[in-house]
Amino acid sequence: MSEQITSLRINEDRFRSNFEALAALGATPEGGVDRPALSAAHLEARRLFLELAAKAGLETEVDGAGNHRAFLPCGSPEAPVLLLGSHLDSVPQGGRFDGALGVLAALEVLQVIKENDIALNVYLEAIDFTDEEGRFVSLMGSRAMMGKLKRDDFQNLCESRELFQRALTRANLDENSILCAGRTPANFAGYLELHIEQGTRLLDQGKDIGIVTTIVGIRSWRLRFIGRADHAGTTPMAKRFDAAQGAAAFTLAARALVMKEFPEGVVNVGMMEFAPGAFNVVPETVSVALQFRADQQNKMDRMEAALLLQAAQDADRFSLRLETEKLEKVAPVDMNPQVQNAITQACEHLNLSHTMLPSGAGHDAQTLAPVCPTGMIFVPSVGGFSHSPKEFTEWSDCYNGVNTLLHSALILAEQNK
Amino acid sequence: MSEQITSLRINEDRFRSNFEALAALGATPEGGVDRPALSAAHLEARRLFLELAAKAGLETEVDGAGNHRAFLPCGSPEAPVLLLGSHLDSVPQGGRFDGALGVLAALEVLQVIKENDIALNVYLEAIDFTDEEGRFVSLMGSRAMMGKLKRDDFQNLCESRELFQRALTRANLDENSILCAGRTPANFAGYLELHIEQGTRLLDQGKDIGIVTTIVGIRSWRLRFIGRADHAGTTPMAKRFDAAQGAAAFTLAARALVMKEFPEGVVNVGMMEFAPGAFNVVPETVSVALQFRADQQNKMDRMEAALLLQAAQDADRFSLRLETEKLEKVAPVDMNPQVQNAITQACEHLNLSHTMLPSGAGHDAQTLAPVCPTGMIFVPSVGGFSHSPKEFTEWSDCYNGVNTLLHSALILAEQNK
Repeated sequence: MSEQITSLRINEDRFRSNFEALAALGATPEGGVDRPALSAAHLEARRLFLELAAKAGLETEVDGAGNHRAFLPCGSPEAPVLLLGSHLDSVPQGGRFDGALGVLAALEVLQVIKENDIALNVYLEAIDFTDEEGRFVSLMGSRAMMGKLKRDDFQNLCESRELFQRALTRANLDENSILCAGRTPANFAGYLELHIEQGTRLLDQGKDIGIVTTIVGIRSWRLRFIGRADHAGTTPMAKRFDAAQGAAAFTLAARALVMKEFPEGVVNVGMMEFAPGAFNVVPETVSVALQFRADQQNKMDRMEAALLLQAAQDADRFSLRLETEKLEKVAPVDMNPQVQNAITQACEHLNLSHTMLPSGAGHDAQTLAPVCPTGMIFVPSVGGFSHSPKEFTEWSDCYNGVNTLLHSALILAEQNK
Repeated sequence: MSEQITSLRINEDRFRSNFEALAALGATPEGGVDRPALSAAHLEARRLFLELAAKAGLETEVDGAGNHRAFLPCGSPEAPVLLLGSHLDSVPQGGRFDGALGVLAALEVLQVIKENDIALNVYLEAIDFTDEEGRFVSLMGSRAMMGKLKRDDFQNLCESRELFQRALTRANLDENSILCAGRTPANFAGYLELHIEQGTRLLDQGKDIGIVTTIVGIRSWRLRFIGRADHAGTTPMAKRFDAAQGAAAFTLAARALVMKEFPEGVVNVGMMEFAPGAFNVVPETVSVALQFRADQQNKMDRMEAALLLQAAQDADRFSLRLETEKLEKVAPVDMNPQVQNAITQACEHLNLSHTMLPSGAGHDAQTLAPVCPTGMIFVPSVGGFSHSPKEFTEWSDCYNGVNTLLHSALILAEQNK
């Protein structure tokens, strides 16, 4: 590589100023952001993406799934595309770093390469994927782009169908446009994503950069415990069919079961909805939002069977009916060894300490991994806070991450000769 | 009593037709009604009350608390008022009988007496109280009328203050008008309320009519289990501060505790609210709607202490913080023996079998009982369903109840000479 390339670094001040402008959109009093996919705040953030890209002189496009793209053209029309990206949506009351860091990093990498007039053997593309967090369909944008989304996926949404339709309309999308957003993966040189670690392993080990080996699989279910709505004063305790009892018993048992039998897996009851839902009515239906993760397919299968059996037993115990609805299923995936190697080289070139680690969170990278060489770069998370307004990564670690993304991309582009 | 009076009976067809017209307002596909206090459907029901009263030639008035009143004047201007009533609001997805039966029965009694030109020694008043079910403030209308509502009661609403304000505006009410709705109880000859039993004791014993002895006390609390919002994939199970665990443990323990230590009391967790509330976020806050009841003040005190201690222990167990908020406190009250006696006489006159029983549910009668002779008449509930679309009482039992109300009122009026 040329001296010009090896000495290339990002513009830290510009990156920081872009980051702060983005963090102001959907900002919460607690210091986080509230930008659920396709909400007003999320759409504002996406407009900022287009503005920043235009200011950097990049071409932009929004595809049928709402994915926002910025391009740096390449001299050779036959060249493949190296994708860099992440997402601008957040969980409700989430943090400023999750997803946002990776999207702005991708834009910064394109801008640095463009302003230094560096000719590459690939097209570079910065991409902001739609609904990574799964407000409606987890990893919707990347799955649509890979042609992996089916009409059936809109039947089991994490939110109501009405809300989904309203959100699509607000974003000028519709189900058909999403299903037609597939691209030709044969054309992809690879995909790189920079993200915060969302845990404390890097800080615990004193490492600057994490190189991801595997992304865990995720499965989500909606479990409905169904009893009988009765007057909470006149119905004797022993004659109640109280849906809250089944849901509560399951919530406790699911945690104990996973901690005991699947010590490396995790499980979460993130939400319950009570119907009819009043102080003085025995709850008829409690709908439980269940999600669990593990790093191997067969472990996922065993967890699923054990958790569903547990739910059935808890329903039985309180004479309730149980309805189960499968919402999503994301397989665990390995990252590409060649890409891991490129990231390692970039770290060594930048004199950054590094370690290999699995990702406990899902990412768009897992959708890209089966079809093109894919890798992820992690930077340290102070306190390990994630999906929380308390998410925090030091500026120096952010800059390290973006420079690592830059040089990993340069190395992969070089390999594409 | 005159022969004209002793042979007096209600107009069954008219009563049934009024009942069916009312049940159509806020009707749900499941066969119940959804008429939360001050909702559009509830306000429609109240307009029907005024229409039916006007059609019967009764004068009407709406007081500052929204209580809807219909009058039958009396020859003697100094005569006291005998109140007959109940409420037209329902719990969410409730039944057609709770409250509605008593209000239409009161109107029917006034209409029968008016059309038979029977002169009484009391004013008769049919009253529909506001928010008996406590969507905002339990027994709000009757408590306002008795001057027992304080501005502080609007600080701990069962719903958000914004929703309350919007609902008041919709009904042309405001907090000041409610607080000024007090009347002079010295002027009340008594209060009678007909209601479905909301249990199966009458059917189990084969009795036509229940004569209420006591109304249980009710206390409601909001318990907030507070942990930490974290990523549900990356945060190790052992490092979570999962508010759902505390709420679930308490929900199970509260039931077990009351069944074991307070076998005649009841407890309900009717609702939980999760924040932030997403599949992939460990819940930071779970807000638990707790309500419990017992028939004696000291039993209520002991239950409260035991339940709050239990909640604190469950919060501790999962390293959570607990916030407790007292929402309402209704003391258990005895019904008036003289009124119980009048109801007994009415049953015997009508040749209806009867029994004495306590009420496990709260009623506006408990607000009236401390200030004027008060009694309640119960009719059988098929299956004991209550606060449910499945509430059902046979027409013959409804008619028996309304005739019992009629003759109990006539006997009490007679005693008022």
